[in-house]
Order: sequence, then structure tokens, then C-alpha cells
Amino acid sequence: MEKEFLERTSLITYSAENYQKNDYDTISEIILTNKTQTIEWLNTYGNKFTEIFKTIVSNNKLDDFLMKLFMNQEHSNKVILLDDLVFISTRVLITKSEVLDSEQMLFVVSSSYLWSIQEKDGDYFDWIRERLEGNKGIVRRKKTDYLLFLLLESIVDNYQETYQRNAELSADKLNSTQIKPTPEFTSLVEKRKQELFNFKKATLSLRDTIIKLEKIEIDNFDVKYFSELKEQTNNLISNIDFELQELESKINLIFSIQGHRLNEVMKTLTILSVIFIPLTFLAGIYGMNFENIPELKFKYGYFILLGIMILITIISVWYFKRKKWF
Amino acid sequence: MEKEFLERTSLITYSAENYQKNDYDTISEIILTNKTQTIEWLNTYGNKFTEIFKTIVSNNKLDDFLMKLFMNQEHSNKVILLDDLVFISTRVLITKSEVLDSEQMLFVVSSSYLWSIQEKDGDYFDWIRERLEGNKGIVRRKKTDYLLFLLLESIVDNYQETYQRNAELSADKLNSTQIKPTPEFTSLVEKRKQELFNFKKATLSLRDTIIKLEKIEIDNFDVKYFSELKEQTNNLISNIDFELQELESKINLIFSIQGHRLNEVMKTLTILSVIFIPLTFLAGIYGMNFENIPELKFKYGYFILLGIMILITIISVWYFKRKKWF
Amino acid sequence: MEKEFLERTSLITYSAENYQKNDYDTISEIILTNKTQTIEWLNTYGNKFTEIFKTIVSNNKLDDFLMKLFMNQEHSNKVILLDDLVFISTRVLITKSEVLDSEQMLFVVSSSYLWSIQEKDGDYFDWIRERLEGNKGIVRRKKTDYLLFLLLESIVDNYQETYQRNAELSADKLNSTQIKPTPEFTSLVEKRKQELFNFKKATLSLRDTIIKLEKIEIDNFDVKYFSELKEQTNNLISNIDFELQELESKINLIFSIQGHRLNEVMKTLTILSVIFIPLTFLAGIYGMNFENIPELKFKYGYFILLGIMILITIISVWYFKRKKWF
Amino acid sequence: MEKEFLERTSLITYSAENYQKNDYDTISEIILTNKTQTIEWLNTYGNKFTEIFKTIVSNNKLDDFLMKLFMNQEHSNKVILLDDLVFISTRVLITKSEVLDSEQMLFVVSSSYLWSIQEKDGDYFDWIRERLEGNKGIVRRKKTDYLLFLLLESIVDNYQETYQRNAELSADKLNSTQIKPTPEFTSLVEKRKQELFNFKKATLSLRDTIIKLEKIEIDNFDVKYFSELKEQTNNLISNIDFELQELESKINLIFSIQGHRLNEVMKTLTILSVIFIPLTFLAGIYGMNFENIPELKFKYGYFILLGIMILITIISVWYFKRKKWF
Amino acid sequence: MEKEFLERTSLITYSAENYQKNDYDTISEIILTNKTQTIEWLNTYGNKFTEIFKTIVSNNKLDDFLMKLFMNQEHSNKVILLDDLVFISTRVLITKSEVLDSEQMLFVVSSSYLWSIQEKDGDYFDWIRERLEGNKGIVRRKKTDYLLFLLLESIVDNYQETYQRNAELSADKLNSTQIKPTPEFTSLVEKRKQELFNFKKATLSLRDTIIKLEKIEIDNFDVKYFSELKEQTNNLISNIDFELQELESKINLIFSIQGHRLNEVMKTLTILSVIFIPLTFLAGIYGMNFENIPELKFKYGYFILLGIMILITIISVWYFKRKKWF
Ligand SMILES: [Mg+2]
Ligand SMILES: [Mg+2]
Ligand SMILES: [Mg+2]
Ligand SMILES: [Mg+2]
Ligand SMILES: [Mg+2]
Ligand SMILES: [Mg+2]
Ligand SMILES: [Mg+2]
Ligand SMILES: [Mg+2]
Ligand SMILES: [Mg+2]
Ligand SMILES: [Mg+2]
Ligand SMILES: [Mg+2]
Ligand SMILES: [Mg+2]
Ligand SMILES: [Mg+2]
Ligand SMILES: [Mg+2]
Ligand SMILES: [Mg+2]
Ligand SMILES: [Mg+2]
Ligand SMILES: [Mg+2]
Ligand SMILES: [Mg+2]
Ligand SMILES: [Mg+2]
Ligand SMILES: [Mg+2]
Ligand SMILES: [Mg+2]
Ligand SMILES: [Mg+2]
Ligand SMILES: [Mg+2]
Ligand SMILES: [Mg+2]
Ligand SMILES: [Mg+2]
Ligand SMILES: [Mg+2]
Ligand SMILES: [Mg+2]
Ligand SMILES: [Mg+2]
Ligand SMILES: [Mg+2]
Ligand SMILES: [Mg+2]
Ligand SMILES: [Mg+2]
Repeated sequence: MEKEFLERTSLITYSAENYQKNDYDTISEIILTNKTQTIEWLNTYGNKFTEIFKTIVSNNKLDDFLMKLFMNQEHSNKVILLDDLVFISTRVLITKSEVLDSEQMLFVVSSSYLWSIQEKDGDYFDWIRERLEGNKGIVRRKKTDYLLFLLLESIVDNYQETYQRNAELSADKLNSTQIKPTPEFTSLVEKRKQELFNFKKATLSLRDTIIKLEKIEIDNFDVKYFSELKEQTNNLISNIDFELQELESKINLIFSIQGHRLNEVMKTLTILSVIFIPLTFLAGIYGMNFENIPELKFKYGYFILLGIMILITIISVWYFKRKKWF
Repeated sequence: MEKEFLERTSLITYSAENYQKNDYDTISEIILTNKTQTIEWLNTYGNKFTEIFKTIVSNNKLDDFLMKLFMNQEHSNKVILLDDLVFISTRVLITKSEVLDSEQMLFVVSSSYLWSIQEKDGDYFDWIRERLEGNKGIVRRKKTDYLLFLLLESIVDNYQETYQRNAELSADKLNSTQIKPTPEFTSLVEKRKQELFNFKKATLSLRDTIIKLEKIEIDNFDVKYFSELKEQTNNLISNIDFELQELESKINLIFSIQGHRLNEVMKTLTILSVIFIPLTFLAGIYGMNFENIPELKFKYGYFILLGIMILITIISVWYFKRKKWF
Repeated sequence: MEKEFLERTSLITYSAENYQKNDYDTISEIILTNKTQTIEWLNTYGNKFTEIFKTIVSNNKLDDFLMKLFMNQEHSNKVILLDDLVFISTRVLITKSEVLDSEQMLFVVSSSYLWSIQEKDGDYFDWIRERLEGNKGIVRRKKTDYLLFLLLESIVDNYQETYQRNAELSADKLNSTQIKPTPEFTSLVEKRKQELFNFKKATLSLRDTIIKLEKIEIDNFDVKYFSELKEQTNNLISNIDFELQELESKINLIFSIQGHRLNEVMKTLTILSVIFIPLTFLAGIYGMNFENIPELKFKYGYFILLGIMILITIISVWYFKRKKWF
Repeated sequence: MEKEFLERTSLITYSAENYQKNDYDTISEIILTNKTQTIEWLNTYGNKFTEIFKTIVSNNKLDDFLMKLFMNQEHSNKVILLDDLVFISTRVLITKSEVLDSEQMLFVVSSSYLWSIQEKDGDYFDWIRERLEGNKGIVRRKKTDYLLFLLLESIVDNYQETYQRNAELSADKLNSTQIKPTPEFTSLVEKRKQELFNFKKATLSLRDTIIKLEKIEIDNFDVKYFSELKEQTNNLISNIDFELQELESKINLIFSIQGHRLNEVMKTLTILSVIFIPLTFLAGIYGMNFENIPELKFKYGYFILLGIMILITIISVWYFKRKKWF
Repeated sequence: MEKEFLERTSLITYSAENYQKNDYDTISEIILTNKTQTIEWLNTYGNKFTEIFKTIVSNNKLDDFLMKLFMNQEHSNKVILLDDLVFISTRVLITKSEVLDSEQMLFVVSSSYLWSIQEKDGDYFDWIRERLEGNKGIVRRKKTDYLLFLLLESIVDNYQETYQRNAELSADKLNSTQIKPTPEFTSLVEKRKQELFNFKKATLSLRDTIIKLEKIEIDNFDVKYFSELKEQTNNLISNIDFELQELESKINLIFSIQGHRLNEVMKTLTILSVIFIPLTFLAGIYGMNFENIPELKFKYGYFILLGIMILITIISVWYFKRKKWF
């Protein structure tokens, strides 16, 4: 267990002038709270090493409430301010595959060290490691506040791209085919709504995390960077809300089309029935076998009746025209 | 009464070094506000001992507004900050049986003692007593703030598990059977919505309690632990909201299916009627008994009419095809 | 006028040791702001004595904005903090009769006196007068803050009981009779919703009053008691909201049942029509009087046709079965 | 222009002891910021005198942002706190005529002067001028804060009365005639909703103005009076919301009645069709002209068929009775 | 690149006494943070000059987080407070053409300089440049706070005019033609709703920007002007909400008209069917070919039957009249 932990853990130490990448041989070597001016970024893949986490907390004299927090492996998004550090937990969407998967990500941050614990292997942070190593941008001149900002920005960017990709897929499915008033189409729209609610829930939760980060107060920890992230999540949420309103409009249209079609169908049936029912009745009258029906013996009885029928038809059609039924 | 109270009351005294479990012989022995560094956890099963509660309040010189509060045995969720203690009342779901039952739970908490009063026998707190006795975790090193956190966490966990279990049951009932546009199915969905509203009401109320606890200010009472609980309740509420939105989608689908089926039924009826009504009318015409209907005497009159009827049918079918009725 | 006012006004003076009940002979005797350690509770039945109220305000040198406030006899719920007193106005439901009536109640409160002005005779406060006279509970040891708490608690309790009684009546009317998809039943549900909106409006307004009281700052006036009242009104509001959601579900069910019944009716009509319309057409064909219809002369023509008709019927029924129409 | 302005402008100067009404001869005479203990109330009818307003601002050394504000003649409701004065703009409903008209009203207020600029001639403030002149009530003893309170109270009162009058008119139109499920009635309800949204918008905007006034901080300017006004607008808004919910109920009822009527109509049609369609088919059968239909030659064939028809009818009726169709 | 940047960049320097318009020859000349009392307004058309922006930030020793912000060319609306400057990003609607287009606009503002970066050529700011050059109004006497106010006011005004123009167009399309219960009309209404949601999103975002500006604290930067802008956006939002509610009413009316028309159509069909179905059945009875049907031989059988039919018709009509079907 200890060996596996050490293999999956690595440290980056940096300052404006220096950059160093280390691995550890024993757990007791892991000292986060050293007095030097450098920044320590410790990264661990895997969140199951509960006992080792506790040892590190104890060795480094970190707030012991961390021990309780590490015992739970299913955190929702949280920001908990402890003695002179902040514990952050967030669920991150993994968006390589089609299906939305997610992983737990934990950060323990003070002004001089940042410890990131990721549930699964691999991350979106390699571009940050490159900037650190190559001293690109301003990251080496800044503290852990800026490093945390870059890590969270990777996550937010990833959400944004995922949403964009999904939205285009959905637009294809729901637009290219025109709105159809069938349960199947309604079902597609409602499924997309569920997806969006799900995505909105994740984004709202992430924004909450960022808003809480904006308000924490730790010495030498600057929170101004996080307002940039808050705006990005707000923007994403308002895009989701807008698509939700479009879908609501589609539902309204579906019901309107259903109602309209029913009206059309019933009008067709009714017009035809109103015209033919009286005519058929008249034909029935003169199909009766009474011995004494005088009209049957008229020479032009049949033709007079046909004339009357044509007249009735004309009157019916005129009546419907006047009522604007067609 | 006094004897029953004493039987149903017990005390746990602990500090980082010591642990002791006591029972009392007389009420006057119950001293919560002693000056020692130990923590006292007094637990009583039963909330009907109003007069004895008042005696304890008076003996220990606690805020006398507690007397008024103990008189009421039907509290909703409350957090009331008194002189140097806090009075907490919460209704807790009892989830052993199928039916949702609940019990009243009261806590009187200062930085050095915690008095829990439970309406009914039995609780979910045995794991805490074990941790205290066995000195597991950090509970013995902490004050009543951490003990209260553990007690409330038991309650929140219990809500979470109960919701999980219920949600699975409901998913089986509402999903395995496909959506049916019947009042019976609508009724099932609406019943589940009622259940969820009920559960949400209980959880919102619990969250309110926790939020208020986060804001109280008592000397030596640390509220940082409660933000962990707040996140857990928030998470539960957002799960409930998500299921509520799924149910709302189901309702929309039901109405859409009803509308669609009605359209299908009416289209069937209308197409058939439109085709046959004119044909039947024609048959009626030549079933009349006029003495002078020339067509009847044509040699191929019958076959010509059949031809005309086939023509009318073809035209009708073509017309409906063009209108995309089927 | 002055005589009537004096008859309808009485004073209770109390402290932990003493209790006294007085009537007045002249208005100039009414001194609220005396320097003694006792609490004065002045009660007036009737709010029309505008001029006398002004005299009292002037004699006692109270904030002269009270004069303006007394001129208006139709206050909505208000809490207005004046120099060293607070003016409270609230509409209270009178719930003796079936019909919901209400009365105006005004309180002028400082830390040493409380003046209650009630629009109508009679009140729910006799139990408080008894506790004061008999020195029960802690009321005599407390200031006007606690007295005001007891007065408002009477009002809140009364709301709660009234709601409970109404809710049971309504449950009988809307449940015992099962949900019927008629306008009459819909109308009953909507009427109950109106009642609830009305009741919720009154309760929200009362809660607002209590929340404002929680925030006022007057020397020697403790607002901790009011959080207990706020929780009680919150509880009542969440009960009302829950019943509102139940009614909304009933409305949804009504529309679902209407839709379902229409579908059932139309399916019955359509199935029958689809089966019989072609058969009737066939019968019509062979009821025609053409001289040359060869089939009519076949020996078993009639029986062959009956066989064809039975076949058509079987095919139709099989078709509807396959489409799951019944 | 200047002459017109001077004609339409007048000044009231008052203190507890004095009251004076002035007109001006030149613009340079208009000095608002004199050092005396009196209160100046300057009133102008007409808001088009932009250049003159600027001169007054400049002469009196008022905050020069006022110049920018006076240039705009179409303000929405605003409260803008400037150096030592407050600029208030509000649209006031003019409610003499049936049609809702409105006018712009501007106030420039410091603790010692109040300048009111009204778009149109005439106002509701004559009762205030009378109270000032006759030294009625407490207005002469108070500062501009109280004068502003009285001016705004006139406006709020006017809203309240207008709403009351409108609501009664509408109740007559929508209640006396019972709810009818026609587009015309729906249209009436929706029009009333539009009216209410309009009115609510105006009132919300006015309340916002008052809430902002409650929070401004100017020396010697007391904001306690404005909470009285806030309560009045809150009360009006909750009355509007209540009527809106009543209208929403009416809409639900309309749809329910439509659904119910359709069900009734379709049931009538279906029952009749189900009964007669088979009977008519049978009659058609025996109207056929096959040479060999044995039943036609039975002596009592006709009567047996009639019996069968009556039997079928009875069975149909019994079936519908059992299905509770009527 | 550098040449293009210099061509598209220009500076206006002003104070109460002076006004000067400059172009630059090299980037190193661009000094924003000079110590003089003048105000610098630097304007750049084009946001792609990332590297040059970074050079300017570095030359002027501005907060280096600006470099990170300039790298992103797709900002949503943001206000980020940096060391002694504020970074503002806003998307501005371009409203010359029919189609809504937008451009990115960035402002870097301290108390002594304002740097505006516009994505596209051309702007609405020429009237401000004229006021600066001609020393009209108070702009030359004020700091960058007032200049920023004027720039944002141009944007807000533009939104307001655009909305006004759009609303009139839409009113023409949706009103002049009366409400039609067709999917086409519903679709028009829903499209307008989408437009409004879009516009509301843009306006809400702009208001957020302004609200954040109201709260920033920079030395010598006065935020009082921005409350004027906030009121203007609030007013626009409440106009949009009002139109949204009108459209919701239209949707309700459409469904009500559909329901009403369906009822009318079905009533027509049902009345006609109910009258003729029994008559046609009777005619069918006496069209049967039984050898023994006594009524057929009655002398007045035919006329008696006609009488009975007229009677049945009268009874049916009377029945429908009584049921108020027409
Ligand atoms: Mg949501
Ligand atoms: Mg939303
Ligand atoms: Mg929502
Ligand atoms: Mg929404
Ligand atoms: Mg919907
Ligand atoms: Mg909607
Ligand atoms: Mg709710
Ligand atoms: Mg919800
Ligand atoms: Mg929701
Ligand atoms: Mg809700
Ligand atoms: Mg909905
Ligand atoms: Mg809805
Ligand atoms: Mg709806
Ligand atoms: Mg409500
Ligand atoms: Mg509600
Ligand atoms: Mg609701
Ligand atoms: Mg619904
Ligand atoms: Mg509804
Ligand atoms: Mg509302
Ligand atoms: Mg509303
Ligand atoms: Mg509503
Ligand atoms: Mg609502
Ligand atoms: Mg509704
Ligand atoms: Mg919205
Ligand atoms: Mg809205
Ligand atoms: Mg909205
Ligand atoms: Mg709204
Ligand atoms: Mg609304
Ligand atoms: Mg709605
Ligand atoms: Mg709708
Ligand atoms: Mg509606």
C-alpha cells in the first residue's frame, strides 16, 4: 500500500527562480510545511490511501479534522476552511468518452503548499506543469492561490467544452428533424432537459465551490483570481438556462401542433359528415318499401331529388365557408 | 416518575485521557456545569419529564427560558441561542419500518456539556459511544462541538440512506413498467411527488437547523464542523430536486402521449369515415325505389358504379397521403 | 368619549414581587414612563379614540410620529422603531365563527411599558393575566419583551389551530369524495387554493412582523424569545405550502382523468365505427336496385357475403388487438 | 422661458414658528442653501426648463451631476445619493380619468430644502400645504424628511385608491357573469392579468424607491418615516398577487370546463352511435336484394328481428350503465 | 503587427483646461501611469494584439494578471478588481443591421487613465469625443469615473433603443394579425420569446457588470454615477419581463381558442348525428325486404312515419336547446 502510494505521488517545488520535480522514498519524507520561500505542489493519483493520508496529516501537524474528512470517499462539492488551510472537494466530469463519467478531486491548500488528490489516473493539468517547468506566464512568480486558479480553470474550461459539444449534438438531433408532435419527439426533448438539469446541477455546485473560495481568508492567499472563474461558470449556467427555455418552447409547440392537428382532423370529419348524413337519410327515405309513397311514381322524382341534394350540398358548403371552417 | 427518569438517563464523562459511564441515583446529583475540564454527555430517553427538566434547569442555573421551551412537547426544528448555551430541537425520521415515522430530539449544548433528550427509545448513536469508549478518531480530543457534529451527522446519514432506498423502490415502480397515459400511472407519479415534497421539507428544515448552528457564537464552541453537514444536506436536496424534475418530465410525457393517441384514434376514424361515407351514400342512391331511375337499367350500370367507387377510394387515399395523414 | 375610553382601558402593574390591577378616573393619570422598576401593561379595547391617544402621547412625551400613526385606523402589519419605543400593528384572525373575520391590534412597547390597543372587545390573553396574577412561570421575573412574546404567541397559536381545523374540514370534502374530473370538483380545489393563499398571506405578514421584531434594538429589550415564534410561523407556512402542492397534484390528476376518459370514449366509438362502416357499406351495395347485379342471383350469394363480413370483422378485431387498443 | 418658469414656480418657507409663501421675480433670487433654520419647499410645474435648472444648480453650488440628470426628461424611478443631497425621480399614476396616465415627478432633497419638479400642472399636495399653513399635525416641527414622507404618502395613497377602484370594476365584470369557457372570457381574464402586471410593475418600482430612501444617509435627515410607506406598498403588492392567483384559478377552471364539456358532447355522440350503428347494419342486411335470403320469407322474421334489435339496445344501455357513462 | 496596432490606437489627453489628441509612433511611447493631473483615454480598435498588450502591461508595471486576461479573446461580461485598476469586459450588441451581432469590449480603468479595446471598428462614442473637445457639459472637470459612465451609458442607451425598435416590429407582426390558433402563430410567439430571453440575458449580464462597478473601491474613483445606469438597465429588464408576460397570455389564449373551436366543431357534428342517426335507422327498417311487414301495407304508413320522424326531430332539437348546446 505504502509502495503504491509512493509510486503514485510526486512533488513539484518551485519559486520565481527554481523548479524541481521529486519522487519520495518514504512517507516520513513528505514535509509540506517547511519554512522555505518555495511553493510545494504535491499530487496523488488515488483516494483510497486513507491511513497514509492520516499519517501525513499527523506528521505535518495539519488540522486533525482532515482525518475525519479523508475517511469519507464520496464527497460532494465542498470548501471547508480549517486552521490555516482550506480543504476543497469537487466532482469533476471526465469527458473523454461519450458517457458522462466523473471523478473525485480533493485539494488541501495553504499559502505555501497545494496537495491535490485525484480519484483516477490522468488529468488535464499537463499544460500547467509545462508552464511551471518552462517558466511561461506568471505562474512561477505567484503563490498557491494562482496555481489553484489554474487547476480550477482547467476544470471549468473542460465543462465549457463538454457543454458546447453536447449542445451541438443535441441541436442536430432536435432541429434537423423538424418538431414532430409524437411522444417519441417529446421524449427526446425531455431527455435533453434531464441532461441539462444534470449538467446545471454539476455547474451550480462548481460555482458554489468557487464562490466559497472567493470568500476565504488565509494569510498570503489572494482570492482575486477566482472572480474570473465565477464569471465563466455564470456564463455557462446562463447558456444552459437559455437552452432549457428553448426546449420549453418546443414542448409548447408540440402541444400546440397536437391541438391544431386534432382540430384539422375533426373539421374534415365533421364537414364531410354534415354534408352526407342528410343526403344519405334522404336516399334511405326513398329506399323504403311502403306501398304508397307518391313521390316514387313522379316521372322526374329521381331528378328532382338529385336537384334537392345538390341544393343541400351547396347550402352546407356556403354555411361552412361563412363560418370560416375552410 | 423520578425513578423512571433516572432509569432512562445516563451520563458519559470524557476527556482526552479519561472515559466514564455513570447512572444517577437522585436528580440533585445531575450537575452539568462543573468546573472540570471533562466533557459531559447526558442522554435521556423520553420527553415527558417536564417537571424534572425544570428542576435540572433550576439546579444548574441554566437560562430559565428553557423551562418555557420544555413545556412544549411538539417542537418543529429550532435553534435558539440562550445565555451561554444553545437549545436545538429537531424531528428525526425513524426509518426502520416501511412507513416514515419520526421522533422529537432535543439538544441542550454548551461548550462543556451536551444534554440529548430523545422522544423514543433507541438511537443511531452507538457507534459514537464506541468511538468515545475505545478512543477512536479524534472525538475524545475535541469539545462538545465535535460531539454534536457526530450526533447530527448520524441523523443526516440516516436521511441520505433512507432517500437512496426509497428512490430505488420508486424507480422500479415507475420505470420498469413503461410510462402509461392512464390516471393510475399519473396518480403514482403524483404520489411520488408528494413523498418527495415531504422529504424535501424535512431536509430543508434540517439544513436550516445546521445553517443556524453554523452562525452561533459561544465561547470555546467551534462551528467549522457544521459546514461539512451543510454540504451533505445541500447534496441531498439537489438530488431530490433532480428527481422532482424527472417526475415533471414524466407528467409532460403522459399528456403528450394522451394527445398523440387521441390524434391517432381520431385519424383512423376520420380516414375510414371519409372513404366510406360517400360510397355508402352512392349505394343508398341506387337503392331508392323511384320508378324512373335510368342508370338502374344500364347493362353495366352496376359495374360502372363499382368503378366510380374504386376511383373515389383511390382519390381519397391519395389526398390523405398528400396531407401526410398516414 | 373620554368616559368610554376610561371604561374600556385598564392597567396591570407587576414586578417579580408585586402585582396590581388598576382602572383610571382621568386621562392625565395615565403615566407610562414612570421611573419605578415595575412593568406597566395598559390595555384598551377600541381604536377610535384618536384624540385621547394623542393626549396620552403628548402627556408621556412619546415620539410624536405616533400621533400620525394613530390617525390611520386601517394599518397593515407593521413594526416601526421610534425613539425609544416600538410601534407594532398587526391584523389578527378572529376564529370563533365559521367565517374568517379579523381585528386590528396595536402595540406600543418600550422596555418598561406595553400598551395594547385592540379594535374589538375580548381577546385570547386571559391565560396570560392569570399567569401574571398567580405568578406562574417566569413572566413576572421578565420585562415587556417576554410579555410581548406571550401576547404574540397567543396569536400564532390561534393561527395554527385555525389552520388545523380548516385543513381537516377540507380534507373531508376533497378526499372522502374521490377525485372527479368535473368543473364542480375543480372549482372546489381552486376555492381551497384561494383560502390557502389567503391564509398564507396572513401568516407571511405575521412572520414579517416577528422577523422585524427580532432585529430591533432597544435598551433592556431582549429579542431572543422571538426566534421561537419565527420557527412556529415558518412551520405553519411550510404546512400550507405542502397542502398547496397536494392541490396542484389534484388539478394535474383531474386533467389526466379527463384526457384518459376522452380517449376511452373515442376508442369505443372508433372501434365500433371501423368494424361496422365497411359492413354497412357492403349491405348497401347489395341493397341497390340495378337490374344486372350478378351476385344477387348466386344461390349462396347471401351466405358468401355473410362469411366475408365475418372475415372482415375478425381482421378488424385482430388489427385493433395488435395495436393494443383494447 | 424664464418668465414662464417663474410663473410656474413657488416657494414655501416654514419653521415651527413661521410660515411664508413666495413667488420669485428673477432666477438669481432662488437661493436654496441659505443658512437659516427654516425649511424651503420649492415647487415647479414643468420639467422642460433644462437650462434654468442648470443655472439654479450652478448658483446654489449643488452637485453638478444634477445637470446631467436634468438633461434627461424620461427618468424611470430612481434614488441617487449625491454630495449632500438626494435626487429622486418617480413616475406617478394620474388617476382622474378612466385611462391610466402618468407624470414624471422629480425631488431634489437635502436636510434643509426640498425642490419638487412635476411634469404636469396640478397635484395631490394641497392638503399638505393646508397643514403647513394651518400648523396642523407635526409637519412644521419636522425637517424635509417628514415633508418628503407626506409627499410620497400622497402618491402611495393614490395608488391604493386607484387599485381598489379598478379591482371592484374588474370583479363586477368577471364575477357577475359566471365563468364561461369561451376565448372571449379567457381574453378578459388575460387582459386583467396584463393590467395587474402593469400596476404591480409601477408599485414594485415605487417600493424600490422607498427602500432606497430608507437606506440613504444624510445629516439631519431621518429615514424612520419611510418604513411606514414601505409597509403600505408591500400591502398593495400582496393584494395584487392575491388577485393574480385568483385569475390563474379562473384560467384553470376554464380549461377544466372546456375539457368536461368536450367529454359530455363526445359521450352523447358515442352512446347514440354505439346503439344505432349495429341496428342500422342489421336493417341494411335485410334490405339487400339477394334472391335467396331465407329469413325474409319467415312469417315472423320481421318481428323476430325487431325483438333482437330491442335486445341489443337493452344490452348496450346496460353496458354503458355498468361503465358509469351516464 | 506593431504598425497595425499603432495605426488603430489613439490617445486623448484632457483636463479641465486642456484637450489633446495624439497618435503614437512606437509602443514604448505609451505611458499611461504618468504623474500629471491629466486624464488619459487610450482607445484601440482590435483585440488580437495579445503580445503588444502584454508589452504595455509590463512597460507600465500594471497588475500582471492582465496578461493572463488578455490571452483569452472570448470574455463574457466581467468586472475584475486588480491592484489599483479595474478590468472590465462586456459584450456589446451591434445594432446597425437587422440581425443581432455583438462585439467584445474591454476597459482597463484606473483613476487617471482609461484604456478601451474594441473588437471591431467604429463605435457610438463620437458624441463623447465631441463633448471632450468642445468642453461641453461637465466631462472635462471629472475623472475617468465619469468618462467610463458616459461610455457605458452609450451602450445602455443603444440597448434601450434596439429593444424599442424590435418591440414595435414584433407588436406589428403579432397584433395586427389577430391571434390565430395555428402552430405557425404559436411558433412566431415562441420565437419572439426566445429573442426576448436572449435580450434579457444580455441586459442582465450588463446590469451585473454595472452592479459590480458600483461596489469597487479605487482611490479617486467615484461610483455614484453608476446607480443611474443600474436604474436604466432595471427599467429595460422590467419592460422585457412585461412583454414576456404578454406573450405567455397569448399562448394561453391560443390554447383556449383551440379548445373552444374543437368544442364547437364536435357540437355541430354531434347534434347533426344525434338527429339523423335514428331517422336513418327508421328508414333502414322500412327498407328491409321481409315478406311480412304489416306497416308497409298501411295506406298512410309512409306519411305516419314522416310524422314520427318530424316529432323525433322536434324532441331532439328541444332537448339540445334545454341543454344549452346552441
Ligand atoms: Mg434547477
Ligand atoms: Mg432558471
Ligand atoms: Mg429551475
Ligand atoms: Mg427556467
Ligand atoms: Mg410545460
Ligand atoms: Mg411556462
Ligand atoms: Mg417547494
Ligand atoms: Mg424545486
Ligand atoms: Mg427547481
Ligand atoms: Mg418548488
Ligand atoms: Mg412545468
Ligand atoms: Mg407550469
Ligand atoms: Mg402548465
Ligand atoms: Mg405564493
Ligand atoms: Mg409555494
Ligand atoms: Mg409551486
Ligand atoms: Mg404540470
Ligand atoms: Mg396546472
Ligand atoms: Mg409574485
Ligand atoms: Mg406571480
Ligand atoms: Mg402563481
Ligand atoms: Mg408560484
Ligand atoms: Mg400554474
Ligand atoms: Mg430567465
Ligand atoms: Mg420573468
Ligand atoms: Mg424567468
Ligand atoms: Mg416575474
Ligand atoms: Mg410572473
Ligand atoms: Mg405558468
Ligand atoms: Mg404555458
Ligand atoms: Mg396556465
